[in-house]
Amino acid sequence: MFGARCLLLALRPCSSAPCPKPAQAAKLRVREALGAQEVNRDIKVQGWVRSVRSQKEVLFLHINDGSSLESLQVVADPTLEHRDLTFGSAVEVQGKLVKSLHRMQNVELKAENIRVVGPCDTLMFPFKPRERQPLEYSRQFPHLRCRTNTLSSLLRVRSEATAAIHSFFKDNGYVHVHTPIITSNDCEGAGELFHVRTSNKVQEPGENSHFFNVPAFLTVSGQLHLEVMAGAFTQVFTFGPTFRAENSQSRRHLAEFYMVEAEMSFTESLQDIIQVMEDLFKTVTSIVLSKCPQDVELFHKYVSPAQKGRLEQMLKNKFITISYTEAVEILKRAPQTFTFQPKWGSDLQTEHEKYLVKHCGEIPVFVVNYPYDLKPFYMRDNEDGPQRTVAAVDLLVPGIGELCGGSLREERPHFLQSRLARLGLADAYQWYLDLRQFGSAPHGGFGMGFERYLQCILGVDNIKDVIPFPRFPHSCLL
Amino acid sequence: MFGARCLLLALRPCSSAPCPKPAQAAKLRVREALGAQEVNRDIKVQGWVRSVRSQKEVLFLHINDGSSLESLQVVADPTLEHRDLTFGSAVEVQGKLVKSLHRMQNVELKAENIRVVGPCDTLMFPFKPRERQPLEYSRQFPHLRCRTNTLSSLLRVRSEATAAIHSFFKDNGYVHVHTPIITSNDCEGAGELFHVRTSNKVQEPGENSHFFNVPAFLTVSGQLHLEVMAGAFTQVFTFGPTFRAENSQSRRHLAEFYMVEAEMSFTESLQDIIQVMEDLFKTVTSIVLSKCPQDVELFHKYVSPAQKGRLEQMLKNKFITISYTEAVEILKRAPQTFTFQPKWGSDLQTEHEKYLVKHCGEIPVFVVNYPYDLKPFYMRDNEDGPQRTVAAVDLLVPGIGELCGGSLREERPHFLQSRLARLGLADAYQWYLDLRQFGSAPHGGFGMGFERYLQCILGVDNIKDVIPFPRFPHSCLL
Repeated sequence: MFGARCLLLALRPCSSAPCPKPAQAAKLRVREALGAQEVNRDIKVQGWVRSVRSQKEVLFLHINDGSSLESLQVVADPTLEHRDLTFGSAVEVQGKLVKSLHRMQNVELKAENIRVVGPCDTLMFPFKPRERQPLEYSRQFPHLRCRTNTLSSLLRVRSEATAAIHSFFKDNGYVHVHTPIITSNDCEGAGELFHVRTSNKVQEPGENSHFFNVPAFLTVSGQLHLEVMAGAFTQVFTFGPTFRAENSQSRRHLAEFYMVEAEMSFTESLQDIIQVMEDLFKTVTSIVLSKCPQDVELFHKYVSPAQKGRLEQMLKNKFITISYTEAVEILKRAPQTFTFQPKWGSDLQTEHEKYLVKHCGEIPVFVVNYPYDLKPFYMRDNEDGPQRTVAAVDLLVPGIGELCGGSLREERPHFLQSRLARLGLADAYQWYLDLRQFGSAPHGGFGMGFERYLQCILGVDNIKDVIPFPRFPHSCLL
Repeated sequence: MFGARCLLLALRPCSSAPCPKPAQAAKLRVREALGAQEVNRDIKVQGWVRSVRSQKEVLFLHINDGSSLESLQVVADPTLEHRDLTFGSAVEVQGKLVKSLHRMQNVELKAENIRVVGPCDTLMFPFKPRERQPLEYSRQFPHLRCRTNTLSSLLRVRSEATAAIHSFFKDNGYVHVHTPIITSNDCEGAGELFHVRTSNKVQEPGENSHFFNVPAFLTVSGQLHLEVMAGAFTQVFTFGPTFRAENSQSRRHLAEFYMVEAEMSFTESLQDIIQVMEDLFKTVTSIVLSKCPQDVELFHKYVSPAQKGRLEQMLKNKFITISYTEAVEILKRAPQTFTFQPKWGSDLQTEHEKYLVKHCGEIPVFVVNYPYDLKPFYMRDNEDGPQRTVAAVDLLVPGIGELCGGSLREERPHFLQSRLARLGLADAYQWYLDLRQFGSAPHGGFGMGFERYLQCILGVDNIKDVIPFPRFPHSCLL
C-alpha cells in the first residue's frame, strides 16, 4: 500500500514493491509495552522516533506514541539503520519484548523489523531531539507543538481532567446538559460578545437580515440555560466552550475557553455550593495525580518547581472561607501598596486576590457575600440591608486568583422581577421569570474556568499553553 | 429564609415565620428512595409534584426530581393538603420510607411534613397532569419542556450516552481533545459557515477590522485539528458542537449540533475504521439500554413502537459493508422510482440511503469507496483508476440514513499537495501539508452526528426533539 515510500529495513532485505508486511504480532501501545508483565513475546509497536543512537554493535531508538510521556527503548542490529530513520519519523517496529538489563527501564524491544512509514524533514522540523524549548517558542507551531514532551504531557493531563470532571458529576447524580453555544441572550453583563452572522455581506439592521431572525451571540456562560434544567433534574452540569470578545492580551484570558458549570436545586445555603466546589477541585486533582503522575511531575520539575508543594498544601488543607467585608478589611490592613486601593463596594482585583491567598497561607480561599451592586441580576439578595450584599462566592487559588465563581440564584419572583424591571430587562427575561412562577426552588451553582484549573495544578504561567488551539486578539491560527 | 412563601404543612401546624425546618433526616434522591433496600427510616425527598389525589382518608402525591422517570409515591394525612400543593409545585417531603402494599411500587413515603417551597401557577403552566402532548407542542416551551416525561427521559438518555461515549474512547486508549470552535479555516466545503464578528457595527473589509486579524468562522468539523493531534497521540477523539448556516428546514438538520469525531494513526485499512464505528455504536447503545431502561422504553412504547425491534436487530447483527459501486447497482435494480435517478458519480440521497438499508434487512450498512470527485480533498485516493475512488465510508442506519462518515486521509505528501494545488488551496493548507512532511503516518477517522444517533436509537422523527435548545433557521429561543 505504501510502495512508493515503504522502507522495510529487515535483516532479510525487502526486494520489491509491494513490500511484504511483517508477520502478525500483538500490536501494543507504548504504554502497554512499558507496563507489560509478560515478556519474551513478539509484539509490534508504532510511533514516532524520539532519539536515534547508533553504536558500532547496536542501534538504540526511543519510540513514543503519545500514550505516555515515557518512550520505549528499541535495540536493533546496526544493519537496520537507514537514512530515513531519524528523529520525528513515523515507524513501525516488530520484535521481541524483553526484560531490560538497564536500570532506566523495565523492558525493551529487540527489533527484528523496522519500517519507516513516514520520514521527517529534520532540517525544517522546528523541534530538535533533547532540546527543551520555551513554551513561547512552541506556541508558534500549534500544529506541531503537541509532539513535544511538555505539550503532550499537558494534553494528556487535560484529557484525564476532562474525564475526571465528567465522572465526578456523574458519580454524584448530576445530569449532563449541552447548553447552547449560539444564544439570543445579550445582556448578562459578562463582557463583550461575539456576534454570529451568516455571511460577509453588509447586513442592514432589521429582523430578517438575521439567520435566526434575532441577533445571535456566542455564549458567555451556560448558567441561565442550566437553571432551566435544574428545574427538572435537580442537579445538572455542563462542560463546554464559552467566549469573550475582550481585547485583553493578558496571560489569564482567552477569547475561547472552557467552563465547567453546575447548578443545584433545593440549595438554600452558600455552604452547600462551596462544598461541591471544594470536592470537585480535590477529587479531580487526586484522579489526575494518580492517573498521570509522570506528566504532572514534568511540570513540577521543569516548568514550575514551586507548584508541587503548593498543590500538596491545597489538597491537604480545608479551604478557607471569608466574607467580602473581611477581605476588604484584610486588604486595608495589608503592609503592601496596591495599584487599586481596596474599598468596600469595589471589585477585588487580581493583585487583591493574590494577596488574600498569600495572607491565608497559600490555601484556596472562598470569598462570600459580595456587594449587591457589583454582581449580576440573578444573584440572591442576602437582605442584610437595603440591597447591600448578595449570596455570591468566588474561589481564589494560589498563583491564579479567581478560579471559580458562584452564587445562590434569586428564586423569589418578586425580588427578581423588580430587579429586572429596574434594569429594563423584564421583557427579555420573561422566560427566566417564568421559571420562578412554576415550582421555583431555591437553587444555586457555580462555574470553574477549566484552563485556569490546569494552570493552577500544573503551575503554567500563560493560559495559551494549556489549551490545544488558543484563540486571542489578533490570533486564530489554524 | 423563605418566610414570605414558606408553607410548612404539618400535623402540628406551623405558627409563625420564620418557619422551623423539619428535623434532620437523610436526604435521598427519588431514584435512591425507589431502589432503597433499607426501609422504615426517616428520609427527606425534594422535587416537583407530578400528581395530587385527595381521598377522604388519605392524600396521594407523586414526587419527581428528575433522577428517574418513575416518581415516588407519597401518602399523607389529608390534613396536610394545601392550596399550593398542586401539580408542578416544588416540595420538600419528610417522612418514613416504607414498603408499599401496592403492586405498582416497592416503596412509598409516609409523609410527616410537606413543605411547598415554590408554588406553580397551574393555569399558566403549559403542561397538565397525565396529558401526553405532541413533541411539536412542547417545542414551543424550551424552558419548561424538560419537565415533561418525554423530554426528561430524552435528556437523561442524552446524558448517559455522552458519558458512555467518553468512556468508550477512554477505555480504548484515546486522548480527548478540545478542537477549536472558532477557526480560520473556511474552505473545507462542508456547507455554509457562520461568521464570527465582534460588533454590530458595519466593518470594512481588510485585516484590521477583524478581532483575530483574519476572518473567523464557527467550526464545521474538528477533523483537521484532530489530525494534528493524531500525529502525537495516535488515537484521539473530540465530542463538541459543530455548525452549519444552511437554510434547511428539515427534520434532520440543525444549525448547531454535536459531533463525535475520532482519528487514528497507523491505520491502513478502512476496515479498521469501520470496526471502531460499529463498536462505538453497539457499546454506547448497550450501556444506554442498561442504564436507562425505563427512559428508552418510554420512547419505544409511546413515540416509536417500531423502533424497539429494529434496535435489537441492529445490536444483534454484524453491520453490512457494500461498495458505492454495488450500492448504485442495487439502486438501479430497485423496483421503486426515486426522485433522484441513481447514477455512478452522483451523491446518494436520503431516499437512496433509506432504500439501501431496507434492502439490507434494516441492518446498518457501511458504504465504502466513493467517487473521488464527490469527496473533500483530504480523502485518500484508492488508485483504482485515475482519480476514480477514495477510501471513504458512510454508515447508513434504519430510519435516518447517514449517521457517520469517515475515510482514510491522504497521508502521502505529493498526492495531497497536487490535489490542494489544483483546488488553489496549497497556501491556506500549508500547515496541513506540514503534517505530511514530519513523520506522516497512514491514518483515518470518522465523525458521528450525536443527535442523529439519539434519533436512531429512540426513534425520534425530528432532530429538534433530541437536543435541549435547538437552533435552526428563524429560531434561537432563549
